[in-house]
Amino acid sequence: MSESTLCVGVIGAGRIGKLHAENLVYALPEARLKTIADVQLDPAMEAWARGLGIPCVTPDPAVLLRDPEIQAVIICSSTSTHADFVIQAAQAGKHVFCEKPVDLDARKVRAALDAVARAGVQLQVGFNRRFDHNFRRVRDHVEAGAIGTPHLIKITSRDPAPPPAEYVAVSGGIFLDMMIHDLDMARFQAGSEVEEVYATGAVLVDPAIGRAGDVDTAVVTLRFANGALGVIDNSRQAVYGYDQRLEVFGSKGVAVAGNDRPNTVSLATATEVRSEKPMYFFLERYQAAYVAELRAFLEALVQRRPCTVTGEDGYQDLIVALAANRSLAERRPVRIAEIQAELTAR
Amino acid sequence: MSESTLCVGVIGAGRIGKLHAENLVYALPEARLKTIADVQLDPAMEAWARGLGIPCVTPDPAVLLRDPEIQAVIICSSTSTHADFVIQAAQAGKHVFCEKPVDLDARKVRAALDAVARAGVQLQVGFNRRFDHNFRRVRDHVEAGAIGTPHLIKITSRDPAPPPAEYVAVSGGIFLDMMIHDLDMARFQAGSEVEEVYATGAVLVDPAIGRAGDVDTAVVTLRFANGALGVIDNSRQAVYGYDQRLEVFGSKGVAVAGNDRPNTVSLATATEVRSEKPMYFFLERYQAAYVAELRAFLEALVQRRPCTVTGEDGYQDLIVALAANRSLAERRPVRIAEIQAELTAR
Amino acid sequence: MSESTLCVGVIGAGRIGKLHAENLVYALPEARLKTIADVQLDPAMEAWARGLGIPCVTPDPAVLLRDPEIQAVIICSSTSTHADFVIQAAQAGKHVFCEKPVDLDARKVRAALDAVARAGVQLQVGFNRRFDHNFRRVRDHVEAGAIGTPHLIKITSRDPAPPPAEYVAVSGGIFLDMMIHDLDMARFQAGSEVEEVYATGAVLVDPAIGRAGDVDTAVVTLRFANGALGVIDNSRQAVYGYDQRLEVFGSKGVAVAGNDRPNTVSLATATEVRSEKPMYFFLERYQAAYVAELRAFLEALVQRRPCTVTGEDGYQDLIVALAANRSLAERRPVRIAEIQAELTAR
Amino acid sequence: MSESTLCVGVIGAGRIGKLHAENLVYALPEARLKTIADVQLDPAMEAWARGLGIPCVTPDPAVLLRDPEIQAVIICSSTSTHADFVIQAAQAGKHVFCEKPVDLDARKVRAALDAVARAGVQLQVGFNRRFDHNFRRVRDHVEAGAIGTPHLIKITSRDPAPPPAEYVAVSGGIFLDMMIHDLDMARFQAGSEVEEVYATGAVLVDPAIGRAGDVDTAVVTLRFANGALGVIDNSRQAVYGYDQRLEVFGSKGVAVAGNDRPNTVSLATATEVRSEKPMYFFLERYQAAYVAELRAFLEALVQRRPCTVTGEDGYQDLIVALAANRSLAERRPVRIAEIQAELTAR
Repeated sequence: MSESTLCVGVIGAGRIGKLHAENLVYALPEARLKTIADVQLDPAMEAWARGLGIPCVTPDPAVLLRDPEIQAVIICSSTSTHADFVIQAAQAGKHVFCEKPVDLDARKVRAALDAVARAGVQLQVGFNRRFDHNFRRVRDHVEAGAIGTPHLIKITSRDPAPPPAEYVAVSGGIFLDMMIHDLDMARFQAGSEVEEVYATGAVLVDPAIGRAGDVDTAVVTLRFANGALGVIDNSRQAVYGYDQRLEVFGSKGVAVAGNDRPNTVSLATATEVRSEKPMYFFLERYQAAYVAELRAFLEALVQRRPCTVTGEDGYQDLIVALAANRSLAERRPVRIAEIQAELTAR
Repeated sequence: MSESTLCVGVIGAGRIGKLHAENLVYALPEARLKTIADVQLDPAMEAWARGLGIPCVTPDPAVLLRDPEIQAVIICSSTSTHADFVIQAAQAGKHVFCEKPVDLDARKVRAALDAVARAGVQLQVGFNRRFDHNFRRVRDHVEAGAIGTPHLIKITSRDPAPPPAEYVAVSGGIFLDMMIHDLDMARFQAGSEVEEVYATGAVLVDPAIGRAGDVDTAVVTLRFANGALGVIDNSRQAVYGYDQRLEVFGSKGVAVAGNDRPNTVSLATATEVRSEKPMYFFLERYQAAYVAELRAFLEALVQRRPCTVTGEDGYQDLIVALAANRSLAERRPVRIAEIQAELTAR
Repeated sequence: MSESTLCVGVIGAGRIGKLHAENLVYALPEARLKTIADVQLDPAMEAWARGLGIPCVTPDPAVLLRDPEIQAVIICSSTSTHADFVIQAAQAGKHVFCEKPVDLDARKVRAALDAVARAGVQLQVGFNRRFDHNFRRVRDHVEAGAIGTPHLIKITSRDPAPPPAEYVAVSGGIFLDMMIHDLDMARFQAGSEVEEVYATGAVLVDPAIGRAGDVDTAVVTLRFANGALGVIDNSRQAVYGYDQRLEVFGSKGVAVAGNDRPNTVSLATATEVRSEKPMYFFLERYQAAYVAELRAFLEALVQRRPCTVTGEDGYQDLIVALAANRSLAERRPVRIAEIQAELTAR
Repeated sequence: MSESTLCVGVIGAGRIGKLHAENLVYALPEARLKTIADVQLDPAMEAWARGLGIPCVTPDPAVLLRDPEIQAVIICSSTSTHADFVIQAAQAGKHVFCEKPVDLDARKVRAALDAVARAGVQLQVGFNRRFDHNFRRVRDHVEAGAIGTPHLIKITSRDPAPPPAEYVAVSGGIFLDMMIHDLDMARFQAGSEVEEVYATGAVLVDPAIGRAGDVDTAVVTLRFANGALGVIDNSRQAVYGYDQRLEVFGSKGVAVAGNDRPNTVSLATATEVRSEKPMYFFLERYQAAYVAELRAFLEALVQRRPCTVTGEDGYQDLIVALAANRSLAERRPVRIAEIQAELTAR
């Protein structure tokens, strides 16, 4: 192993943990994946890890956390355990990549960030869409000044099918579970913090989602500190596939990112012209972005540069989502400062 | 002249009056344009009318209004005179096509509609975009059920360049002057009335617009009676041209209308792929829609069917725009019923 | 009538003659259409002309040709009469716009061009596609040097439905009847003359076309004097509509013109994404080009500049089409010089 | 290793051999890459193989060929050695995947195919584009009858930059070196064999290519046994990137495949609308197709089905390219039967 190869461990080998592990093995030679820890370790998981050539597999995350060889930990366990593992990993002196969200409770997130700061380790939160080839290209245009001063950030983000109502009930709601990706993208593209949020929502897709206390369709408007406006629309069900579009409009122009499609073929017949629907869902659409976010994390560690999606980003995204929750409940615009003041006060 | 040819007069021969007159002469053989009345009649206007073969030109609208041969009047004078001419034309028993808005004061609009109702004549308001080939095609898809139940109406509407601040000062503001077209389109596409409005805005294009008491960039969210949501964004300046896009998203799909472009050519070179910007402004983009709206008006008269964009549409659009004004001023969502109640009370 | 208004007459009021007449009346105020001459004059045609306000209608073209007020003649009669009318009009000192082709016999075309030259009048041939907004834009890019030196001219040109076999039998064949437009476009875009042609063809659409001695599908490759290559494909039946595309590829890039569509709407559903088929046929697609070609003709006369699509263009196009005929028949590449030599020899 | 895992070896570890080896290791768990043989083995190559976890590395292909554990051989050595290795591998009872072309001499290809047939092993030739997501989708539409009977196969295939003239001199010329991919694609899409070829060409990109006896720009028309026509254009230099487009036009419609682009972003400014150029070159554009062709090869072996791109395909493609060579040289259409007769006669 070369000097610049990092030794990493993964906590949690569910769908997203497996994805990161496979990307580390197949696509990221700059890292060596030594250990997988999953409390629900079973023979199938062991066989999968063996097939990838991962040397150590354990049901006990502590084994991984006290391994002095491991320099960085990828946390992919269930959301409720994220903050604790971040703290433990930080205290063990390990850099941390944590899947989003760090926690649904802003104070627990703050505690985790404090632990990270005290330990002097790096923390990257898994907002993979910042590394998407389309959205990254839009941001490049914005940073290059091609669209001038941003006036409006506009995001369409719709899932192909709704989750089960049981999932919705524990998800934290559409803003914390789904739109938080878009809120992060809006902050990323605006290059500024959100100051005020107004949220509207409706139950149009599945009444069970309404009974679970959530909405399935939402439009949120944002006001940024730099004066720009933002608008995000979410739906839990776009029957034509995963609809992920972005537009940044400014004083000198507009950059627009459309959907990816599985091929470029169009078919024209006597009745119509047909082309392909968007990529089906996030695993297809963001396949390369998942590799790119881990590559950025590893490069930041090797080059001793700060990570590009920090714990503070995750914290801000959460605050904005909480403000959206309150706006929807109280049918009024909510200032971010209002949420922040309460968090500080308590 | 065949039995079904209608004899019409035009009041007001400014830019839009001239446009309608030329469309009547060159593109609408179902009408005969007999008279042009303009209080600012001058030799140039007379020459222009003569060139079109219009028999009568007068500075006095009363001449036109008392001509028993004229069956329909096209009102294109300045906004403050619209309501009075509507009333006078109705009282003279003539059908009326009135440029938008009928008035900026809802009570004056109501008075004009009452006069129209009493006279039993027809009134069409000039929301020409309903006749645009792109937006009409979206509506066809919606009416055919192709997108299922509408969940979200999404409109982008940006002008290529801001008007002078002096114009802005008397325009009634961005919602009454510019977004009213989009509010009408949203109602048209939703097939439902707006119940609640939330407006955000900013002065990002021209500080003089701010000094005139208006905003130049705005995002408005709508809640419709049928449960659908809506969102409209406006800017007074899109440097790349007139940006007029629409999307109706529903339970079975989405219909999206993009911009028209002057040609389909793309140029690929070593540095980039270039294609055409959108049509420059409304005269180019809506050229055919202006003809189509007058054709629809004339056909409705000949076939004794109701007009498709009625005075009530104009009234509702105005109420929604007034609610947006209040929402922006008071930074809260405003229910349409609130505005309506006040109008009734007084 | 202003000094710069030209007095014109139209010979032949069939489909294309009516089109030109209506364009003159409705869209080209720089001309005054005084006389329509059609040997098959009937009451319907007279009513149509009266409706347009055309003062004189006659079954005798000689009336028109000897009218000293008429400065230019638009020849839209049947093809076999074109050359004679060109000669008579030229001898009467009138400028000539002649629908394509001037004749199917190269020697008769030459005789007509000679008459025009002797009379010192102008002649424009009706290759309207040169005035199409898409193809004209490609040519602008080429002339501006944006694609560098042209290497390849590539044209797709397919009709929506085949003509009746009886028409095919007298049409002169696919190269003289249909591809001649594309051969003219290829020469226009290349800015160079064709030196050699190779034609392949097949009967794939309608066996009756084969029985009439023609093909309905053809691919022709061209070699230009400036070294560029060209390729044109034609089909008598593209069931999805009128397919008119062009590409000019060169040392610095490529300019590509796609089809026009009646609107920009796309509809995405659970099964597919649908968009509009191309404009149905040439009257829709080239509507503006027909106006533009007459405007260019009139402007050239007023400004005493040479016309942009000359009789020599029509002659060259014909020679190339004749070479394609021979190439198909003899299954070998044919040099244009071979055809020219024969024409000179005889 | 599971029962269905195939043990394979790779001969030749140049650019394409390394690509296949990496795909086998990272993307094709259904195979186990045991041995790399390269006569120019050096320490860097050994380090690369070690990094991939390949157990055996040897400069002697015979080591690989006599290893009884190896079931299939991937031949990626220099073209002049392909046929011999195919024969040796077949005689050793191993299935063969051979990079294109098998040889530039049709008789040597025939000898190799005979050896394969005698040995009863499978042979797949590396025409990877048949596995491209766009072209495969077009073929799916054709096979499903969506475009009816094919009338015209149209291929644009242009490289971003020309090869060095020294390479051109030994490449076999543009038809054998470059267009052979497109000839294979045309046969694949037509579902029929080529009967006649006519080739035109020019030296427009680099005079050195002309001095090496080749052309750099070519247009070839094809006539298929089923009556369809075909046309392919090639250029050694499209400065805007790798231009790979395909169109199959038929009695019921047309399927069109456009270029892939690295992202979907467009940027509209006051001067233009810009979007991305095509993928730069074949490694980017056909990345997934390289994996897919090996997957198809391995699956055919495991499932004991015939390969989908056979040695006969490679032979036919070569014959057509040789016919194009002769057509260009002798400036006449050449029938495939003419080439076949000569090969049989000698």
